[in-house]
Amino acid sequence: MQTIREIATLRQIIKDARHRGQTVGFVPTMGFLHEGHLSLLRRARAENDLVVLSIFVNPLQFGINEDYNEYPRDLERDSALAEEAGCDLIFYPAVKEMYPRGYATFVDVERLTSGLCGASRPGHFRGVTTVVTKLFNIVTPDRTYFGQKDAQQALVIRRMAADLNMDLEVIVMPTVREHDGLAMSSRNVYLSPEQRKAAPILYQSLLQAKESIKKGERSAAAVRNQIIQNISAEPLASIDYVSVTDTTELQEIDRIQNQALIALAVRFGQTRLIDNILVEV
Amino acid sequence: MQTIREIATLRQIIKDARHRGQTVGFVPTMGFLHEGHLSLLRRARAENDLVVLSIFVNPLQFGINEDYNEYPRDLERDSALAEEAGCDLIFYPAVKEMYPRGYATFVDVERLTSGLCGASRPGHFRGVTTVVTKLFNIVTPDRTYFGQKDAQQALVIRRMAADLNMDLEVIVMPTVREHDGLAMSSRNVYLSPEQRKAAPILYQSLLQAKESIKKGERSAAAVRNQIIQNISAEPLASIDYVSVTDTTELQEIDRIQNQALIALAVRFGQTRLIDNILVEV
Repeated sequence: MQTIREIATLRQIIKDARHRGQTVGFVPTMGFLHEGHLSLLRRARAENDLVVLSIFVNPLQFGINEDYNEYPRDLERDSALAEEAGCDLIFYPAVKEMYPRGYATFVDVERLTSGLCGASRPGHFRGVTTVVTKLFNIVTPDRTYFGQKDAQQALVIRRMAADLNMDLEVIVMPTVREHDGLAMSSRNVYLSPEQRKAAPILYQSLLQAKESIKKGERSAAAVRNQIIQNISAEPLASIDYVSVTDTTELQEIDRIQNQALIALAVRFGQTRLIDNILVEV
Repeated sequence: MQTIREIATLRQIIKDARHRGQTVGFVPTMGFLHEGHLSLLRRARAENDLVVLSIFVNPLQFGINEDYNEYPRDLERDSALAEEAGCDLIFYPAVKEMYPRGYATFVDVERLTSGLCGASRPGHFRGVTTVVTKLFNIVTPDRTYFGQKDAQQALVIRRMAADLNMDLEVIVMPTVREHDGLAMSSRNVYLSPEQRKAAPILYQSLLQAKESIKKGERSAAAVRNQIIQNISAEPLASIDYVSVTDTTELQEIDRIQNQALIALAVRFGQTRLIDNILVEV
């Protein structure tokens, strides 16, 4: 498995593969890989001739007081895990390779990015859509893989790809969870043992909401309040948002009908965790 | 020569051409072709196997009180001219093919779009960069051709392509002019005979500015004032802007050194004309 730092080098390797008629599967990440990322790589391995992983902690998607500097990084560990999952190439560019001096261009997806994490993290999705556009143009994948854990991100990328006529398939894979239900996240390493012990409340409260809906609850406010009460009972948890939205425009809804996304962000100390479930009625 | 209205159809034709090893040259326009456009097509013909012209009056790049509805359209005439210039395919999409319901994604180039036409036409370049990104993703050209008449547009597209790692070459061709120096433009048809007679003052004033610089003038303010005085002497002309800028960031400069862009926009009645020259000292 090769690790490549220059755009021009990667481009040439991918062009050569294309000339041999190979298909390209692409998994964009910020590294510090966990089972969620690996599930994307394994699926990419099964569906494509060439599997490319990018590892780039993208400064553009972090707010000024967020964890860009602290974000965990471990290329050696990531390389071993990626190779085992069937990755052929890691693209690991420097920040100045991606954003050279004079950089001026940004991609925005409107409406879908106004709520949920977009409201708590202004500029975050602009950073995501910009870097992903660049990566797509460099890697030119046939298929690209994202995790359902970042539900809003997956929908935003899907919309961007459709709107800008990007010729690729966006595949979204289920959230991978720890044994106690905590969604896998590179940020879980930030948690103290006490916080880690408390964190499964996120998924538990989502499952309880799903149960209420199954029993007939259709009021989004009631579902939201139930989750808020549940999580507020945990003294280490501080709610950022709990949202019940439609699944195309990601706007808050009043009544739950057809499909809805229940998504939340909760802080444990400095650590902000997200989780979500889709419900169908 | 084929005229294609659907994205999927065009994509398939281009993929087939690529599988045969053909290169693709692309000229994006709003139609109502003149010699300027045709010079781009001829150059594309000389350099590529497949020459694609798009004709799309892009609503996104027109302001609310601008000439979107009045913009001249004549597909039959354009088809004949394009074929003669060596065009293989015209892409002529409907607005709803390009911007279906729920459209949400936009591309912005910052800084370079803040002055000149960007200042007088807010949102204009966002419209241009968004539609051009879409067209590039549909046509996947090896080479794309723009005219120097729209100097800011050409620089913005070049910057966007570099920033977003679009794998194509942006070729900018000289402004084509009428015998009396008026820059060719689809909007020239709006001019009354009197306005048409007065319009060459734009290029004349640019040439006089160039002459002053040749004689040693280095003050941008002096050059600007000379042009303003010149054009103000024409009662039918109303200046929108006269700018002297650097040629990478398009910011107003004080002293003329190395290369500078002298660009202007002037109204004759409702018709807004632009022109520019590059000077080197």
